[in-house]
Amino acid sequence: MMRKYFPASFSAVRLDGAFWRERLETVLSRTIPSQYLQLEGHGILDSLNVHQPAPPLRIPRNAHGFTTQIFWDSDIGKWIEAASYALHHRRDAGIERQIDEIVEKLAAAQAPDGYLNCWYLAREPQNRWTNLRDNHELYNAGHLLEGAIAYFQATGRRRFLGLIERYVDHIAETFGPGENQKHGYPGHQEIELALIKLYHLTGDRRRLDLAAYFINERGKQPHYFTQEALARQESRDAFVLRNPVYNQSHKPVREQDKVVGHAVRAMYMYTAMADLAADLGDEGLKRACEVLWRGVTETRMYVTGGLGPSSKNEGFTTDYDLPNETAYAETCAAVALIFWAQRMLNLDLDGRYADALEVALYNGALAGLSRDGDTYFYDNPLESDGSHQRWPWHPCPCCTMNVSRLIASVAGYFYSTSEDELVVHLYGGTDATLKVGSRTVRLSERSDYPWSGAIGITLEPTEPSEFALKLRIPGWAKGATAKVNGESVDLDAGITKGYFEIRRVWRKGDRIELDLPMVAERLFAHPNVRADVGRVALRRGPLVYCLEQVDNPGGKVPLLRLPSESDLSAERRDDLFSGIVTLKAAGRVVETDDWQHDLYRRIRPKTMPTSLVFVPYYLWNNRGSNPMQVWIAELG
Amino acid sequence: MMRKYFPASFSAVRLDGAFWRERLETVLSRTIPSQYLQLEGHGILDSLNVHQPAPPLRIPRNAHGFTTQIFWDSDIGKWIEAASYALHHRRDAGIERQIDEIVEKLAAAQAPDGYLNCWYLAREPQNRWTNLRDNHELYNAGHLLEGAIAYFQATGRRRFLGLIERYVDHIAETFGPGENQKHGYPGHQEIELALIKLYHLTGDRRRLDLAAYFINERGKQPHYFTQEALARQESRDAFVLRNPVYNQSHKPVREQDKVVGHAVRAMYMYTAMADLAADLGDEGLKRACEVLWRGVTETRMYVTGGLGPSSKNEGFTTDYDLPNETAYAETCAAVALIFWAQRMLNLDLDGRYADALEVALYNGALAGLSRDGDTYFYDNPLESDGSHQRWPWHPCPCCTMNVSRLIASVAGYFYSTSEDELVVHLYGGTDATLKVGSRTVRLSERSDYPWSGAIGITLEPTEPSEFALKLRIPGWAKGATAKVNGESVDLDAGITKGYFEIRRVWRKGDRIELDLPMVAERLFAHPNVRADVGRVALRRGPLVYCLEQVDNPGGKVPLLRLPSESDLSAERRDDLFSGIVTLKAAGRVVETDDWQHDLYRRIRPKTMPTSLVFVPYYLWNNRGSNPMQVWIAELG
Repeated sequence: MMRKYFPASFSAVRLDGAFWRERLETVLSRTIPSQYLQLEGHGILDSLNVHQPAPPLRIPRNAHGFTTQIFWDSDIGKWIEAASYALHHRRDAGIERQIDEIVEKLAAAQAPDGYLNCWYLAREPQNRWTNLRDNHELYNAGHLLEGAIAYFQATGRRRFLGLIERYVDHIAETFGPGENQKHGYPGHQEIELALIKLYHLTGDRRRLDLAAYFINERGKQPHYFTQEALARQESRDAFVLRNPVYNQSHKPVREQDKVVGHAVRAMYMYTAMADLAADLGDEGLKRACEVLWRGVTETRMYVTGGLGPSSKNEGFTTDYDLPNETAYAETCAAVALIFWAQRMLNLDLDGRYADALEVALYNGALAGLSRDGDTYFYDNPLESDGSHQRWPWHPCPCCTMNVSRLIASVAGYFYSTSEDELVVHLYGGTDATLKVGSRTVRLSERSDYPWSGAIGITLEPTEPSEFALKLRIPGWAKGATAKVNGESVDLDAGITKGYFEIRRVWRKGDRIELDLPMVAERLFAHPNVRADVGRVALRRGPLVYCLEQVDNPGGKVPLLRLPSESDLSAERRDDLFSGIVTLKAAGRVVETDDWQHDLYRRIRPKTMPTSLVFVPYYLWNNRGSNPMQVWIAELG
Repeated sequence: MMRKYFPASFSAVRLDGAFWRERLETVLSRTIPSQYLQLEGHGILDSLNVHQPAPPLRIPRNAHGFTTQIFWDSDIGKWIEAASYALHHRRDAGIERQIDEIVEKLAAAQAPDGYLNCWYLAREPQNRWTNLRDNHELYNAGHLLEGAIAYFQATGRRRFLGLIERYVDHIAETFGPGENQKHGYPGHQEIELALIKLYHLTGDRRRLDLAAYFINERGKQPHYFTQEALARQESRDAFVLRNPVYNQSHKPVREQDKVVGHAVRAMYMYTAMADLAADLGDEGLKRACEVLWRGVTETRMYVTGGLGPSSKNEGFTTDYDLPNETAYAETCAAVALIFWAQRMLNLDLDGRYADALEVALYNGALAGLSRDGDTYFYDNPLESDGSHQRWPWHPCPCCTMNVSRLIASVAGYFYSTSEDELVVHLYGGTDATLKVGSRTVRLSERSDYPWSGAIGITLEPTEPSEFALKLRIPGWAKGATAKVNGESVDLDAGITKGYFEIRRVWRKGDRIELDLPMVAERLFAHPNVRADVGRVALRRGPLVYCLEQVDNPGGKVPLLRLPSESDLSAERRDDLFSGIVTLKAAGRVVETDDWQHDLYRRIRPKTMPTSLVFVPYYLWNNRGSNPMQVWIAELG
């Protein structure tokens, strides 16, 4: 086994800080209930009644004959998962009753052999497992499984988990290397990481083996999806985008060295690969993950942690192709990058993983849910003329429950532990009870993160005990300082790959004060990123900022300029969103009045002074339709 | 009649200057013969044999059931037209034989009632005139007509013109306000301007009336294309882009006030509208043209004269939406803008029209044909990573013959005349014999335009005669000076809307020396053009310049920067393309080596000095695959 660390479960960590507490409360009290109403209102819950005649399609088939309705099971699974995480914070009989009703319908739907896909059971039972490439059967199973695990963990009730385990047994019989088994794997990866969760929960090694089978089989020749298409008497090439790169089955996963295709599929697959590397000690998978990680974070990631610039494949294009206004950057992809980064941290404590995790969390992912908690972004551009707006639901509602399940379980990304290490990845107000080897350590953290980098940590081991406390020093934090029980420690000397280690005998009440200076600063993109030439993005701590029109009456957002010599200042604004920090700078606005009718002219555009106000990107479009820009053009 | 000016026919103007002589020779000796081979090799000429069984489609139908093969007639018509213009410069028995053979095939194909569309005659004779919206029947007729007119003008042989006039008679019987006539009009405008040419040639007023009918009927309710679709038992909305805006039939033409939809269709329609305004004295059409002109040139035109940013509709999007790398800017649209501008100059002598005509001619249109004369651009981006390259033919070869017919007839854009005015729009080496009212005036022009703005003009009226000579002073020419018979004249005092008038009694040997200072200069785009923020384009005289990688070994093109304080200089380069003027400047190149693995960083990108060489845009991609950029990022 290569796994060095286990993340501390979200259920062991109570979030007390203002920032996450507010988000959690919103998800619990508004998002989960409103999502249930949407599932009900859009006919998704009705699709569980597989023994009744199937109604006409709610979502018409597209030109390829495909309807997103085919993965409604996954939406149900994800809602249960998100709701279950929420139940850890506050049990709710009403929500539990709703889930139990769903579970009974699933039980009634399940075939005698364990098979449980509501689309196929209701509409084309004869076609089970005949189109893994397009029809999300294994993907749906994965999400039902994740929901079942979460609900068991939340309530201790096994019924849902039990019936899904029967389904998993059926899947394990159906797929594998045996002569009478199908040698297939999912068109949309997801079940792999769910199976590994099941293995971690139950210790049943067969679940890990099945996940490994799906990963190892992927991309082998003869290509399963081609064989499957020919068996359906279809042209081998007649499918969306006509290229196995789209679903990362173009070659065996260990040979993949470039992040390609559909972004969410890629991230889910890499998450499972990193998990398998950890649990199986598979060096080949670890190396592939490391190469892929560098590829994505060094050439194909938005400054917000968004992934996948193109709507055509919902995914990746070419290196440094990061257009702002047309950025797809699906919320799900940022969420899934967080999953992957967490798995990489299990293998190797490297701040690069945690930095990307934090960027995606506070920016690309968090933007996906409105302040009110019941509208969403699917795609997350870094620039908008005001026409891009949150929607209350989507024909493909994957992102809605991905962002809610992330927020409901965000506490699970704060800490991890090994036999004798306690690692702090994220900061905020928390109260956690953690196992470090056989020790039990209570850790409480007080800070106003992400608005302030002043962090106080108090440790309470049940008895004095030596272990290493490893504090992440984010890549953005220059000049960080720390004190242990009031005494300064030399941070610079002790930082390894972004983590500062304090190894000592810890006693009840030991206190660490960490100061991560939060400086408003300009970020420049690599010169190969053509969309960002001559532009800067502003960052303070983990937050990327943007200009929204509503805060900048001095000029239209695209006409605002930031002189290179302007100082940036941070301002606490208690009147905005129950308290945030904005950034301010002296700016310029380009004149357009003096252009009269010219489209091109030889006189340099004139500018006038104005003041600029930047708000955190994750908060944009919570005050109505509003032009927005992350990368502002410099002057001078 | 509102027509003030008639353009001097290209056949009255001999081009002697090096610049156009070389292009003409290339078109005559390489383009026309190679296009014939392409028409032959791609089965297009075979499509004339309508009495033989139709072979399988060469160009498969797209998802909408449409094949570009349906407008092969137009390709044949345009090739004859281009070849005919070429024959004015040098008769060629071989080409004439080829044309005559085509004409005989058309004669054999023509139906007894005059109908002559090879697609319908061969493949679906029962469906004539049932889908004007999509199937280009009237468009094909228009191009055959233009070809027939040009061939008659070149050779005096009437056979082709005669049979097409019979076809026009049939069209006139078929379409019109009568009870038994169809109240339709073309889905792709073109025949209108061809009918007006026929009216100008023959004086037959019925041709003008038919053109006016098509223009006036367009966009009326109930919508003809809808009626037609319902008659075909098709859904009213099942067509490409599902919107009559695409083909400018969304409302009556006089009510149209914004340039929209497919760019070439729009330009052809406006050309006919301006012609009709002139010939019918129609103020409503003139006003509509003026409003549309301002719309396109003030908000939707590339600096090269390219039109239509989007490949989706081959046309227009929103104001100031002018992306560079994805610019569609179809060659045909730039050619058609030239047609329209010329018609506007017949109505109103305004340098705005001539300036746009010249920009489109020397940049957006001329770029469409390779230096060798046998490869083409269909779309003309203003930036390329090197992957955009000329092709030898295209499934939709409209642009190939549009650029060749333009070049072969370019002499027709130099002069126009009225009863007592002789107007010079373009400069170069020419030898022309022009009618100014009843006078005959020989005018010879000597210059090395567009490389130099020093222009000598000698007039030889057959006898001394008073009339006004009007010289265009281009918008780019600041500080122009002129002498008449060696004596300076005060240009500034006499310029009206871009034209300088010299009214006097002209005698044989009178000589004008005009100096249009050609200064290399920066152009800035309107601040609303987001693609060009912080960038400049370089222009000298009528030519827009670009960076090509081959001339700039100091760094990758996208990494080159032009400091705002750098001087621009022009350099004559006889080693390039048989002599051109390049522009040079001290530049900077952005370092990428020091970025290591960062995608974003807080340190401003470093730059190093380098020298920059710019070549005329129209010449790009004549030296192999080559990254290119028109709008270069500024520094400082």
